Amino acid sequence: MSEKTGAAIEFARNNQQRFVEELKALLRIPSISTLPEHAGDVRRAAEFIASELRRIGMENVRLIETATKGHPLVYADWLHAAGAAPTVLCYGHYDVQPAEPLDEWISPPFEPAERNGNLYARGAVDDKGQMWMHVKALESLFTAYEGKLPVNVRVLVEGEEEVGGEGVAWFVREHPEELRADVALVSDTEMFAPDLPTICVGLRGMIYTEIEVRGASIDLHSGMYGGAAPNPFVALAQIISKLKDENGRIQIPGFYDRVASPSAEELKAWKALPFNEEHYRQTEVGSPELTGEPDYSVLERTWARPTLDVHGMPGGFIGAGAKTVIPAKAVAKVSMRLVPDQTTDEAFAQYKAFVESIAPRGVVVTVRLIHSAEPIVVSTDNSFIKAAVSAMHEVFGTDTVFVRGGGSIPIVGDFVRGLGLPTLMMGFGLPDDNLHAPNEKFHLANFHRGIESIVRFLSTAGG
Amino acid sequence: MSEKTGAAIEFARNNQQRFVEELKALLRIPSISTLPEHAGDVRRAAEFIASELRRIGMENVRLIETATKGHPLVYADWLHAAGAAPTVLCYGHYDVQPAEPLDEWISPPFEPAERNGNLYARGAVDDKGQMWMHVKALESLFTAYEGKLPVNVRVLVEGEEEVGGEGVAWFVREHPEELRADVALVSDTEMFAPDLPTICVGLRGMIYTEIEVRGASIDLHSGMYGGAAPNPFVALAQIISKLKDENGRIQIPGFYDRVASPSAEELKAWKALPFNEEHYRQTEVGSPELTGEPDYSVLERTWARPTLDVHGMPGGFIGAGAKTVIPAKAVAKVSMRLVPDQTTDEAFAQYKAFVESIAPRGVVVTVRLIHSAEPIVVSTDNSFIKAAVSAMHEVFGTDTVFVRGGGSIPIVGDFVRGLGLPTLMMGFGLPDDNLHAPNEKFHLANFHRGIESIVRFLSTAGG
Repeated sequence: MSEKTGAAIEFARNNQQRFVEELKALLRIPSISTLPEHAGDVRRAAEFIASELRRIGMENVRLIETATKGHPLVYADWLHAAGAAPTVLCYGHYDVQPAEPLDEWISPPFEPAERNGNLYARGAVDDKGQMWMHVKALESLFTAYEGKLPVNVRVLVEGEEEVGGEGVAWFVREHPEELRADVALVSDTEMFAPDLPTICVGLRGMIYTEIEVRGASIDLHSGMYGGAAPNPFVALAQIISKLKDENGRIQIPGFYDRVASPSAEELKAWKALPFNEEHYRQTEVGSPELTGEPDYSVLERTWARPTLDVHGMPGGFIGAGAKTVIPAKAVAKVSMRLVPDQTTDEAFAQYKAFVESIAPRGVVVTVRLIHSAEPIVVSTDNSFIKAAVSAMHEVFGTDTVFVRGGGSIPIVGDFVRGLGLPTLMMGFGLPDDNLHAPNEKFHLANFHRGIESIVRFLSTAGG
Repeated sequence: MSEKTGAAIEFARNNQQRFVEELKALLRIPSISTLPEHAGDVRRAAEFIASELRRIGMENVRLIETATKGHPLVYADWLHAAGAAPTVLCYGHYDVQPAEPLDEWISPPFEPAERNGNLYARGAVDDKGQMWMHVKALESLFTAYEGKLPVNVRVLVEGEEEVGGEGVAWFVREHPEELRADVALVSDTEMFAPDLPTICVGLRGMIYTEIEVRGASIDLHSGMYGGAAPNPFVALAQIISKLKDENGRIQIPGFYDRVASPSAEELKAWKALPFNEEHYRQTEVGSPELTGEPDYSVLERTWARPTLDVHGMPGGFIGAGAKTVIPAKAVAKVSMRLVPDQTTDEAFAQYKAFVESIAPRGVVVTVRLIHSAEPIVVSTDNSFIKAAVSAMHEVFGTDTVFVRGGGSIPIVGDFVRGLGLPTLMMGFGLPDDNLHAPNEKFHLANFHRGIESIVRFLSTAGG
């Protein structure tokens, strides 16, 4: 460890409580991006971060209004590192999910509270706390390096991650030159288990769709018309039941053609992870049985296999009691998770053609794409991953595990596929941190270990 | 025609405009039984009718509060007819459906308006207008018979027909002696076509159910858990797709065992009705094709065959856009129409056992009965039917057709099965009267022809 890295870590340790207090101030701002009445709070959170980035020494700090007219991006850079130092693009988001149901929170979601070594608040770990690790690591380095940094850094913090991230996608597409970098650092994932440093090297993609089925031209009474008029829900049930068999295998022709199996090495590593399927069923899922493809482990099913889910079926009568309507129209919200080397375009085309081919008689079926994200895997064979593993080994005293995520972080697809950037998903959340749920928390030891890991990573990322 | 019958008809003709104006006053009362804020209006409608029954000469007029604590029944009788005259139980209802969507009404739903020989208002034909025919026929007879009637009459008007009719069912069950009669007259059905007097001689029954499917113990994120966690909507789709095949045949074992075919004579009569399936598809249903059992005509499918419909599937995410939830729970609202000689008890037991037997793994399935009504057919071979046919021949100048209805009128099942009453369903609505829809109307010529038909029927019901 260089003397300056040591000084940065010492600074971070001496300022732990201040860092937490600042984070609390940010967490008090209810920057719920999906609720129009909080638009002012969202902007206030953006300004809070921009102001701190300016204070610690970042340059070109500004809010960027996007063409999609959503919440602003926060951008900053510092590009004066000596020699051939690489450029690191630090990404995070400052918007949060709604806090409902409020009555399940032990302490109010926007009044951060420390209990048992955890900081409880909406956004504590997703992603304000993890984004703040980046800012505080940079502050520590600026101090140790006397106003300089050991690498070039760009910071991009968005305010629409929880609502689709259209603005940042537009910015990546339209202004790639402003994001020119050698590696992207994303801290929006979790550790596989407590004390187990984790790098996420793959994410499933997604196509989120709607199948709309129209039968009669108006709602009809099932007494008068039942037996002759098509029922859109029955038609949807017939379609959905043909999309996936009872072992969870998707029946869309060609859907698995491009599905790449993880390497033997990766599968072996997954087998070595501390994971028990029965414990997972009991503590995380709670259903009588797990479902899905029986020939694959749960980690393979959720990380490396495509899947199909139905999220809701709007239409008809959903109140209490009985209404005997044959609705003119019903919709199924259906999404598929995709894995490398599937592509969203091809998967959607296969799905749409299949659904249309199995449409029952008497109804008109329309298939719509709502949004999509490409699946990605990142190479583990580059110097940045090695630097991160080494940094976390110093902090945690143990080897990093490589995992994948079953969900999608669309921006990572944009970085990897759009900008061609190696992307390092180094996150410090825990599986029980209650993301998107009541009593979201961040384990404070991980907040501080995250800052130290990032300090070390940035210090050594230049080789 | 007796002299007194002639006098009653003359009275009715001379008072047509007054009868319509009185009906308008009743229609101005928004007696929407399902909306608690209209409870006062519902009671006001009951009092309006009770007051008129008293004025015309009915006795024992009173509102009956039922044990089910809903809207009151209106009861009245006059039981002093000479000799062995039979007792006729006149049934109707004074509650109405909600009027939404309001902006589709040409004139406001509770401001009755005459246009093109029709009276437009919510409840015009269903059932205030048809119930008012009974009252005005009785008034005409009281006048002609100088304070007497040619038959004994009981009147029962309920205020909960549109919300399940629990109160009247309780009254029929608990106080059959107050409803002792020889025949029930129900005017809550329609004519098969304009100018075609119609008696409805059968109604399908119904079991209205919910299938609840529970998978995980809490809502899960489809990214993290998709592929391993059961999806309740997919499970429901699998269940529903097995309940009915693509030709509309219900797959529940034993479900058709008791289904009685209409007689050859009845089927022949149906074939002679003025009905064109393609015209029906185009003008009433509007779907690209009709569906259902191909070996049966549309009239058989909707009148004499059981069927199964899904009305809505509450649960999960039904907003605009995308939410990637695997809901812990989803529900399907499923009803089956039953035909003689099916029974609701047996059909529900068969259905429940079958649904439970096809429950996919990983989920817990619960089947609930919401409400039910027995299927009925009434005999056409009795003197009351003959008297009604003869009465309508005098008024319309043409023979009556006998049809069935695809829907359920639970009270008819109670009369037929509970009280053992022959029931005469003689209604004067038209197929395009927009029951339960905007711009409900009653063709005024039919209102007056209905009154005359009922006057003649009551005059001759004694033989």
